[in-house]
Amino acid sequence: MPTSENDSPPVYREIAEDVRAAIASGRLADGDRVPGENDLMKQYGVARATARQALSVLINEGIVVAIRGSGVYVRTFRPLRRHGPRRLSRELWGAGRAIWQADSPEGGFETDSVAVDEIAAPAYVARALGLADEAPVVRRHRRYRLDERPMQLATSYLPAKLAAGTAIADHETGPGGIYARLAEQGHAPAHFTEEIRVRMPTPEELRALRLSAGTPVLDVLRTALTAAHAAVEFNEMTLDGSAYVLQYDFDA
Amino acid sequence: MPTSENDSPPVYREIAEDVRAAIASGRLADGDRVPGENDLMKQYGVARATARQALSVLINEGIVVAIRGSGVYVRTFRPLRRHGPRRLSRELWGAGRAIWQADSPEGGFETDSVAVDEIAAPAYVARALGLADEAPVVRRHRRYRLDERPMQLATSYLPAKLAAGTAIADHETGPGGIYARLAEQGHAPAHFTEEIRVRMPTPEELRALRLSAGTPVLDVLRTALTAAHAAVEFNEMTLDGSAYVLQYDFDA
Repeated sequence: MPTSENDSPPVYREIAEDVRAAIASGRLADGDRVPGENDLMKQYGVARATARQALSVLINEGIVVAIRGSGVYVRTFRPLRRHGPRRLSRELWGAGRAIWQADSPEGGFETDSVAVDEIAAPAYVARALGLADEAPVVRRHRRYRLDERPMQLATSYLPAKLAAGTAIADHETGPGGIYARLAEQGHAPAHFTEEIRVRMPTPEELRALRLSAGTPVLDVLRTALTAAHAAVEFNEMTLDGSAYVLQYDFDA
Repeated sequence: MPTSENDSPPVYREIAEDVRAAIASGRLADGDRVPGENDLMKQYGVARATARQALSVLINEGIVVAIRGSGVYVRTFRPLRRHGPRRLSRELWGAGRAIWQADSPEGGFETDSVAVDEIAAPAYVARALGLADEAPVVRRHRRYRLDERPMQLATSYLPAKLAAGTAIADHETGPGGIYARLAEQGHAPAHFTEEIRVRMPTPEELRALRLSAGTPVLDVLRTALTAAHAAVEFNEMTLDGSAYVLQYDFDA
């Protein structure tokens, strides 16, 4: 039984390290049940608080997930591959497919919490779209779910002069979505810029994306530009960081 | 003073929410000192443990940072922009510049902890490089620092038949780095694929990158391919998630 000495790490850290090593070596595999508080108390001869602290270290590192009323399990990471360039290829939305369908060829993606309104552009949105501050923009918010699991929150902003009164401001934007509607008006997106940041979720995002502890989110900010380099959409996306691998291909 | 009732959130969560709102509204700006345990105890009339719990919620969310012996501060996010396609442009390494110099035009980047050896390729490396399992590869590990701050860990793998006995296997790879050396041998990288994942750091990464609590890391896996689509390098990078914005530009 490990003991805590002045120059050694606290016992709960040693226990956490043992479990971590078991996961790294494959002795505990994806989805396997991790020894619970009672198991650790018996195995290491420690108090419940120590066993709990060891598990909470691993939960906060995101390598195990606590499932209420069931136990603690090794996190299974089977992410969706989100292929930046390919999913935004004109071949897809030009053919009437929704962009996010490209992320899950087997289907299963749905949107909910759709909300559309017209607002005065906040400064950072106006800058991204090359508009005057407080110029009117159509804002579309929605959440994406895959087989009921929330995956992503997204808020698009489009200049009201392009989007107001069109299907872009409707709840259902029709086949091919926003980009197909922009193309019909002669404003087809031709270039995209995506910026990626990573951070811990806010309490609201934790709820809306049903994230477990130790799960960061990816912020993806996309600007869509026409062939003449006019910005036609700015999209703020927040992705469940445990649900995605982002892929980008480019040339030297 | 807020009180804890059965149907209201615990007091420490309400205190955390107040501080979060102060940061969101700009009343507390980047780098500002956040009220400490003593301040919160006085202001809310709570015990030290409650004040500490409120601060630890915010620290784990990564929106504030505890500086030992000083206090707790609003996290300052002034990330480096890492422009995927531009930094890997042949114009840069072809002209003898190191790739990572593109991330900080003012300079200040240095590498340390350089370690080079030859190993049998692990299965996932062999797959990425299109080699037989356990084929010999040259492995280059290094850490990147910017003005002394650790920013990134990186481990490159190259087929030994290309890299062994060349400057690629030396501590100093010379002007333009690995890619310039590959080009001299007729194996210039022409295409790149980058895969991005996000997760919480391991204890080793926490130390090596000197991360504060609530800071996720970005894993960037890059494969470099020649014009003939032969894989010539596989690079596993781990970035301090609070230090970078990744940017990718592409066409529809």
